[in-house]
Amino acid sequence: MYKGVNASDGFGIGVAQVAVAPDLSFTPTKPKDAQKEKERYEAALAKFVEQTNAQIERMVVSIGEEAALIMGAHIEFAQDEGIKEMVSGSIDAGMCAEQAVSEAYDQYYTMFSQMEDELFRERAADVADVKTGLLADLLGKQVVDLSTLPENSIVVVSELTPSMTADIDKENVAGIVTETGGRTSHSAIIARALEIPAVLSVADVTTNIKTGDMVIVDGTAGSVIVTPTKEELELYRGKARAYAEDKAALEAYRGKRTVTADGDEKLLVANIGNPDDANVAAEHDAEGVGLFRSEFLFMDAKELPSEDEQFAAYQKVALRLKGQPIIIRTLDVGGDKEIPYLNLRKEENPFMGFRAVRYCLNNPDQYKVQLTALLRASAFGDIKIMLPLVTSLEEVRKAKALIEECKLDLDQRGISYNKDIEVGTMIETPAASLIADDLAAECDFFSIGTNDLIGYTMCADRGNDRVAYLYEVYQPAVLRSLKRIIEEGNKKGILVGMCGEAAADPLLIPVLLSFGLGEFSVSAPSILATRRTISEWTKEEADALTAKVMTLKTAAEVKAALQAAAK
Amino acid sequence: MYKGVNASDGFGIGVAQVAVAPDLSFTPTKPKDAQKEKERYEAALAKFVEQTNAQIERMVVSIGEEAALIMGAHIEFAQDEGIKEMVSGSIDAGMCAEQAVSEAYDQYYTMFSQMEDELFRERAADVADVKTGLLADLLGKQVVDLSTLPENSIVVVSELTPSMTADIDKENVAGIVTETGGRTSHSAIIARALEIPAVLSVADVTTNIKTGDMVIVDGTAGSVIVTPTKEELELYRGKARAYAEDKAALEAYRGKRTVTADGDEKLLVANIGNPDDANVAAEHDAEGVGLFRSEFLFMDAKELPSEDEQFAAYQKVALRLKGQPIIIRTLDVGGDKEIPYLNLRKEENPFMGFRAVRYCLNNPDQYKVQLTALLRASAFGDIKIMLPLVTSLEEVRKAKALIEECKLDLDQRGISYNKDIEVGTMIETPAASLIADDLAAECDFFSIGTNDLIGYTMCADRGNDRVAYLYEVYQPAVLRSLKRIIEEGNKKGILVGMCGEAAADPLLIPVLLSFGLGEFSVSAPSILATRRTISEWTKEEADALTAKVMTLKTAAEVKAALQAAAK
Repeated sequence: MYKGVNASDGFGIGVAQVAVAPDLSFTPTKPKDAQKEKERYEAALAKFVEQTNAQIERMVVSIGEEAALIMGAHIEFAQDEGIKEMVSGSIDAGMCAEQAVSEAYDQYYTMFSQMEDELFRERAADVADVKTGLLADLLGKQVVDLSTLPENSIVVVSELTPSMTADIDKENVAGIVTETGGRTSHSAIIARALEIPAVLSVADVTTNIKTGDMVIVDGTAGSVIVTPTKEELELYRGKARAYAEDKAALEAYRGKRTVTADGDEKLLVANIGNPDDANVAAEHDAEGVGLFRSEFLFMDAKELPSEDEQFAAYQKVALRLKGQPIIIRTLDVGGDKEIPYLNLRKEENPFMGFRAVRYCLNNPDQYKVQLTALLRASAFGDIKIMLPLVTSLEEVRKAKALIEECKLDLDQRGISYNKDIEVGTMIETPAASLIADDLAAECDFFSIGTNDLIGYTMCADRGNDRVAYLYEVYQPAVLRSLKRIIEEGNKKGILVGMCGEAAADPLLIPVLLSFGLGEFSVSAPSILATRRTISEWTKEEADALTAKVMTLKTAAEVKAALQAAAK
Repeated sequence: MYKGVNASDGFGIGVAQVAVAPDLSFTPTKPKDAQKEKERYEAALAKFVEQTNAQIERMVVSIGEEAALIMGAHIEFAQDEGIKEMVSGSIDAGMCAEQAVSEAYDQYYTMFSQMEDELFRERAADVADVKTGLLADLLGKQVVDLSTLPENSIVVVSELTPSMTADIDKENVAGIVTETGGRTSHSAIIARALEIPAVLSVADVTTNIKTGDMVIVDGTAGSVIVTPTKEELELYRGKARAYAEDKAALEAYRGKRTVTADGDEKLLVANIGNPDDANVAAEHDAEGVGLFRSEFLFMDAKELPSEDEQFAAYQKVALRLKGQPIIIRTLDVGGDKEIPYLNLRKEENPFMGFRAVRYCLNNPDQYKVQLTALLRASAFGDIKIMLPLVTSLEEVRKAKALIEECKLDLDQRGISYNKDIEVGTMIETPAASLIADDLAAECDFFSIGTNDLIGYTMCADRGNDRVAYLYEVYQPAVLRSLKRIIEEGNKKGILVGMCGEAAADPLLIPVLLSFGLGEFSVSAPSILATRRTISEWTKEEADALTAKVMTLKTAAEVKAALQAAAK
């Protein structure tokens, strides 16, 4: 059994098709006619762009807009003026087109692959993919073709490039195994969009697996079994059947309201990271957006996005969600999220440093650009503003005062906005939990950020594997904090939601229902499962379980009790 | 006005005596007779050691044992075998004694001054002082002599070395100003022991101030005024008078019990960092030790201190405090405290990392050495064991299980210990605050570590100046957490103390009395002032003030209310 990254859920059983990339090696020549060489390059470029555009159109139909957008990066990298000049210059200096293309893209590849941010590093794969496409055309070779495959194929490939998957024979692929890529790689995104089980980053798998080998891909656990035993085959056939049945059963919850077994209605919304994710949320039947992380607007930019740029992004989400509630969190910079052009200082303990609302309130002019853009977008949908990392009432008051200034400014500019826009806070710090009653009196809603709240409460950095054993939502200390926050919010009559991963935890949902949580904001693919779990519990049952759980003294006991009671 | 480090409290008004160090420059020679040169070095060394020992004896009488101990380091650095070999080797290689001494000590100076830990860096001054002493003797020069000074002298000197202060004319020195040194430097320690106001690290002060200038030293604020106006003189004479009166008034609390105005008795103990500090605590009339930070035993060592070494240190404190309670905190490594030989990994967020009881419980064999040494020392005094950074009940249970194992082992070895030794926890994490009731049920005492508790509750690293404005004990969130911890501890009938700096805060003391704090553990020099503040409040008055304060919504309002009510 090989272990890898569980990039796309589900179980695939089939026959390996090991796809080996074509040999794109070449012997550099010194062409006499630079002009002709440039024409060869430009022809290859034009053909690549044309093919890619055609692929994108087909992908929009077969996979959906989200995955298709990935290919847009290919066109960008093909037509990038900097790269084009570099290639032309090299050809003028005497290189052949193959060498010029190869060296220019290698330089970009190196640059991207050395960046710290995983999102940027993943773009290196796009650069390599464009190089492969151009070189294959110049050399007259065919790139890996996955458009016709035998039934129940397990695709085994060094790297699954977006262009490979563009025409993938979706019906016949039972699973995907690659040697590279993480959960946020394009390979992973496409595999999930295609709903094909996938395990990535399995070392040497194209040598260890031969075409024709029987292979089981467990995309849920992230494991790959080659030439399984009869028992293993039976086991995984059962798992695959159960998974398919469960998936089909979940479809019964599509288009339904989110209600508990005794008819109490809850709001079930999605966490998104960029405007395009709004489509994904809608596809998964979300009732709105409970957390739009606005920092991606800032991380993708080279300088501070302008009011108009931010407005366009927020308006896009507002228009797509047609009146559904959309909670947009203001810039949550710092901590583990670096934005180079903000020139934030390196800190000893970044999680306890100058970040999120602290940074924003200390840069009010910059903050007002975002707040104004949010206000403007509120004319186009039910946008609410949420403040991250609040630890004191003063921070809320200061932010609200800035929002009032922005409103006056918009009044003067004659621009419309929602005068009653709701302003709420993330509750993700021990301090916010302790003063939840005071915060509830001056906020329109709460959204509990369990990811940070657990870390701060337990004083355990989530990213530090030496203390991971302490980072548990089932810790009695964490549960008590959650109870307090939800109860204090409810006392003041404001909506209390949760946008941390715990909101989608089927074990925890009855406890959250008992505490009185009103809104569950989860990742889009968890929407239907969360709706089902909520539908399985009455208040009385949830209360009985929760009363028992709250007397327990350790996380292990709590988890065991919840597992025993799970439906 | 010059600003510097406020190293020793009080106000000094007098006439500057600028002490310039003697010229110790020399022209290196190549002596023919190495043996004779070594004899010169050894004679200088013997004289230095003899003089230093004589100084130490005089200092014990004039300043007290604490400050005198500093000079022990001089003898160590003079007699260090490594340095002696280096000097002899250089002389054998043809150097004169002056050059050999100079180069050897310079090398050690560089090594110490480049160390990250301030405590080690401060030792560089000791090394330089020994070099100066040896060179002065070899060159037949006199080091700065502060033994006879005119009345009301303000000593202005580049660096106040321990040997300079050994024979300082204490009665005639009204203040000290230096160009180097921090609050933990030996200059600072000696100035505080001599009770002479001192401002350190004022740049170029030996050039900017001339002998004969009128100077005011404000050691409380850390400022120096040269040739003050008549108004300034009057102002500071008033301040000096008030300071002296207050100091004298505090003496009335020496040897008294610590009781509130309505007769409720409290325990008033000291925080110490090493066994010798126990004397200082006793000198300041502490009723025991509320926090003995055991990590200094580990930081001063080159490898893990053995059971016997640790036992000797704990036993020393136990014997000196003759039956008074002594709470010893087990190793609190990590975070801001690095110990090289433990090879702890560098962490992204060390305060939320693998530290304190987490490290210890994951290295049980190592932890048992310390626990066994503590148990052995408990046969000689009222030693209690305290666990740092607890976030779950399991950690307390695991530590107590290890202590039981150590007891069995001691039983087998036939070594006696206090079978009823108390085991308590620091309460310094939001999690511990939230489960204070559960912890109180299984602990013998609490000691609230406000320094970390404030930081974790507010998610603000104390050492990060960008977020220092959030790090406030007066934050409503922090006060609520303190209230909960103290009340839950009292409900279970265990002693709840506080060993963070907040315990000595005169503004906060009425609030702590109202919450029901039973033990105040403060720095030794704060003992008498804390006893006085406690004596000024009845429960009724403290309750009334606290009830009002707990309705306030911001730290600024809380602080203002406490200031208005201060006695």
